[in-house]
Amino acid sequence: MKNEASAILLISCPDQQGIVCAVTDFLMRHNGNIIDLEQHTDTKEGAFFMRVEWELDPKASGGAGGFALPRDQISSMFRLIAECHQMEYELHFSETRQRMALFVSKSSHCIHDLLARWHSGEWNTSIPLIVSNHPDLEPLAKMYGIDFEWIEITQETKAEQEAKIIQLLKEYNIDLLVLARYMQILSDDFCTHFPNRIINIHHSFLPAFVGAKPYHSAHQRGVKIVGATSHYVTGDLDEGPIIEQEVMRVSHKDSVESLIRKGRDLEKMVLARAVWAHLQNKVLVYKNRTIIFN
Amino acid sequence: MKNEASAILLISCPDQQGIVCAVTDFLMRHNGNIIDLEQHTDTKEGAFFMRVEWELDPKASGGAGGFALPRDQISSMFRLIAECHQMEYELHFSETRQRMALFVSKSSHCIHDLLARWHSGEWNTSIPLIVSNHPDLEPLAKMYGIDFEWIEITQETKAEQEAKIIQLLKEYNIDLLVLARYMQILSDDFCTHFPNRIINIHHSFLPAFVGAKPYHSAHQRGVKIVGATSHYVTGDLDEGPIIEQEVMRVSHKDSVESLIRKGRDLEKMVLARAVWAHLQNKVLVYKNRTIIFN
Amino acid sequence: MKNEASAILLISCPDQQGIVCAVTDFLMRHNGNIIDLEQHTDTKEGAFFMRVEWELDPKASGGAGGFALPRDQISSMFRLIAECHQMEYELHFSETRQRMALFVSKSSHCIHDLLARWHSGEWNTSIPLIVSNHPDLEPLAKMYGIDFEWIEITQETKAEQEAKIIQLLKEYNIDLLVLARYMQILSDDFCTHFPNRIINIHHSFLPAFVGAKPYHSAHQRGVKIVGATSHYVTGDLDEGPIIEQEVMRVSHKDSVESLIRKGRDLEKMVLARAVWAHLQNKVLVYKNRTIIFN
Amino acid sequence: MKNEASAILLISCPDQQGIVCAVTDFLMRHNGNIIDLEQHTDTKEGAFFMRVEWELDPKASGGAGGFALPRDQISSMFRLIAECHQMEYELHFSETRQRMALFVSKSSHCIHDLLARWHSGEWNTSIPLIVSNHPDLEPLAKMYGIDFEWIEITQETKAEQEAKIIQLLKEYNIDLLVLARYMQILSDDFCTHFPNRIINIHHSFLPAFVGAKPYHSAHQRGVKIVGATSHYVTGDLDEGPIIEQEVMRVSHKDSVESLIRKGRDLEKMVLARAVWAHLQNKVLVYKNRTIIFN
Repeated sequence: MKNEASAILLISCPDQQGIVCAVTDFLMRHNGNIIDLEQHTDTKEGAFFMRVEWELDPKASGGAGGFALPRDQISSMFRLIAECHQMEYELHFSETRQRMALFVSKSSHCIHDLLARWHSGEWNTSIPLIVSNHPDLEPLAKMYGIDFEWIEITQETKAEQEAKIIQLLKEYNIDLLVLARYMQILSDDFCTHFPNRIINIHHSFLPAFVGAKPYHSAHQRGVKIVGATSHYVTGDLDEGPIIEQEVMRVSHKDSVESLIRKGRDLEKMVLARAVWAHLQNKVLVYKNRTIIFN
Repeated sequence: MKNEASAILLISCPDQQGIVCAVTDFLMRHNGNIIDLEQHTDTKEGAFFMRVEWELDPKASGGAGGFALPRDQISSMFRLIAECHQMEYELHFSETRQRMALFVSKSSHCIHDLLARWHSGEWNTSIPLIVSNHPDLEPLAKMYGIDFEWIEITQETKAEQEAKIIQLLKEYNIDLLVLARYMQILSDDFCTHFPNRIINIHHSFLPAFVGAKPYHSAHQRGVKIVGATSHYVTGDLDEGPIIEQEVMRVSHKDSVESLIRKGRDLEKMVLARAVWAHLQNKVLVYKNRTIIFN
Repeated sequence: MKNEASAILLISCPDQQGIVCAVTDFLMRHNGNIIDLEQHTDTKEGAFFMRVEWELDPKASGGAGGFALPRDQISSMFRLIAECHQMEYELHFSETRQRMALFVSKSSHCIHDLLARWHSGEWNTSIPLIVSNHPDLEPLAKMYGIDFEWIEITQETKAEQEAKIIQLLKEYNIDLLVLARYMQILSDDFCTHFPNRIINIHHSFLPAFVGAKPYHSAHQRGVKIVGATSHYVTGDLDEGPIIEQEVMRVSHKDSVESLIRKGRDLEKMVLARAVWAHLQNKVLVYKNRTIIFN
Repeated sequence: MKNEASAILLISCPDQQGIVCAVTDFLMRHNGNIIDLEQHTDTKEGAFFMRVEWELDPKASGGAGGFALPRDQISSMFRLIAECHQMEYELHFSETRQRMALFVSKSSHCIHDLLARWHSGEWNTSIPLIVSNHPDLEPLAKMYGIDFEWIEITQETKAEQEAKIIQLLKEYNIDLLVLARYMQILSDDFCTHFPNRIINIHHSFLPAFVGAKPYHSAHQRGVKIVGATSHYVTGDLDEGPIIEQEVMRVSHKDSVESLIRKGRDLEKMVLARAVWAHLQNKVLVYKNRTIIFN
């Protein structure tokens, strides 16, 4: 999509005068050409959020010379500004290829969709590893030439097996964990290892129908619309910060089986959108809510 | 819309062979021209539902003579068929002008919308009465020349005041009660007087965010979509059969105030659609769920 | 989804009294248990349409014996009824596994999605053949073990190459042709070989933006919503009967590239829904419009 | 909604480094507390757009003193910045109550909706005048106590009558003209008097179905989705910059009459959203397209 290398700053800090000015002044002084800037002020919380993206290389900015700071000095130089305004910030580069591990169980619709996006080059990402608590999808992993680790988890083996998974994720140098209908609850402890780096898809319009059988509950309640929700995983099941949701209209004609069938399309779409937003460094988490830059 | 007089049968019964055949045979034997037929079988419940609408008058069916039974004999004649198949049924006539009472408090967006539909002739209905627990909207009622009854309700006066309302509804010969953001909970006893004849609008996508301040809760949870729900009122608050729902996309940019503002448009649209479906005799209730014929 | 064998009749005829009665009477006389019946009367056209589905096997109807006619006699027996009412009808069996050929060029998002549905068993269909005017997607076909035929087409070779394709489709015994972003216009003559059996996906909300570069046109016009359209292919480019459409909201922030990227998700979803409706025998074509039973 | 007084700058200029910095520096130097800032760079056009809103009064900014420039000096002070960067800009104040004239013919659904928003205080606007080429809606205007001018227009009287309307708009000091299903084409000359100040609602999803009978055309084509479009009026009929669009799903069951009935709800919603965006000073027009700030 974007061929030119760019840098991205995600900033949050207490609301105060002069923040945008300070950041844009910093970029201008180093010859930075802003290609996208979005800010949000949460007046109730007194909090300020900002995402700014600027070009790095000379050619892109039409002969104007490119950003004057080398990549590895940007963060330390910006820290001076950040400290003045009590900013927390993340610095990302668009050219970074993030490494994802997919977690699955038996359902394949989400993983099929994610693999297709990677395989077709739609997403500039790597998928070196698939983890599952069931062996069923190993052949699919093999089709795509991806390592598949079957790690069964029982009540008794949970701690031990999760430790093994953490070890694997380190070995594979994984940036992002995507739970593509992984039907196994991750422990609190596991989650704390990867804050805002585990994305799950829940097959309901949260907070309606938390728990295991949302389509059954939706059918039982007779709702006219069902949904799917993608969120960062925290220790609180189904309670993490929501990244994306989508819904579709259903009717009395839809049996539970029909809801499940139609829901699969929702789930894969919502999960893909959430992962895409994360990969684009467009998500900030603040007090269990997300700011999704556009 | 439809100028021709038609009759409508709403039928529910245990699923069994030959029901459609029996009903359509009955209509054919009396020269009935079907203009709409929709059936639904709930195989899990073993239940059958049907709505059939047919022309009554000669001219409409192109000289073919019209339905052979006079209006006041249809029900008794159909009863013979119904009893064979353990059917429950309702018979309606499209020419009937239903009489609605609107219940309001202080918010006017829903009532404004309903009054406009009536006033412009979009809906073939009567609105002879507006009931409120606050006096604020009396001027609006007067603008439209509609009687306005201000009936305050406190914990202590509830039984007495509800009795007064029931008396009023009888006097005005009301068919349908529409709670257009009426911020007063009706007692169990009151509800049982009007089964499937009270329609409420709840300002959330039920069953998410039941209760009093759904937009605050939605904001707090950080959802990306909010909704509104219209349902028949039963003794269980926010738990009655859902007739219609609609949603809209929101973002971190929406404050609670913004959700409330945008939500008004959802609420009035959803309530209007639910009332319209009811007025068209397109709603059947079965085990706290609705079948909405198309 | 549905394990039980069922039969489906799709009927269209001039509107007249007694049609539903005649059809349901036929089924009842042969002990047919209807599981779905939907009818539509187009009063303006004076045309009647109906889809009825009933169980075939004994066990399904709870010991009631099953449909009394053998599969191969249903059509000839029903013909007597059909002739009385000038019906055109199609008889289908749910157990039939339709054979699809996919037509592609270079884009893989639609074919990836269709293959995943087949491979995961979501769709009870066969995909024995992929045809393309480019060699690019042959590796993908091989991954799934499907025959791939690269058939280049130029102005000069069109007639000859289309004849070759027709020959292939016969050899592979293909029921349905799915153009999954096949960037080659089929000749009038080719289309007439497969009436209502070629499904295409067009990357705009038809009839807006016909032709080759709809996302560029949409961007140029500054629309706030873009769409995708799936339709049966006729000799008139982009003018065949529409089966399904879907849209999504866009903004001034979306470049042409962004529209193309987002549009891919629309396209694959819309195409899949259209093919699914066709596979379920839920589509009737009448005067270049479709009736889509629910 | 927002009680605090704020100022809004809408800016467009050739894309270049340092614009955000220059604007925010200007605000900071005068003690301006930014409450919203959104920018957009159209890289293809080499154009930059920005909307910034900041607080004016002391109390709002928590004792910080308020914006240091008096309202009537802001524009002239900002001009210095603007000229350095070849900016075009508009300065607005949130406390300004815009004056709208509504143009109608016979349909009342849009005007009913707009009047309700004004009457209930949802919109902080004035509606002193309703203009119509038919007398039908005069009683409605009277109900709301608004002046109603019946100005018939024929081919022959058009120039003269439009002159009369322009005169009226001047007398009433009208800021914004809203064509709420006004079935009369305004002349090129008339339009040039009110650039980006006339908002129309067209009852189709433009550019599909331009012209007079879009629902008939939509029905004829058999589309599965219909829409409505609100746009600024220019001399080119139905070709002005699109502000807002919305769609809804329809089916073969919808007759033309049913499309018209359902479409009314779309039309009034889309028109209201477009007018609201305009009233909030969130719309910029560039080369016949709109930038809609969020």
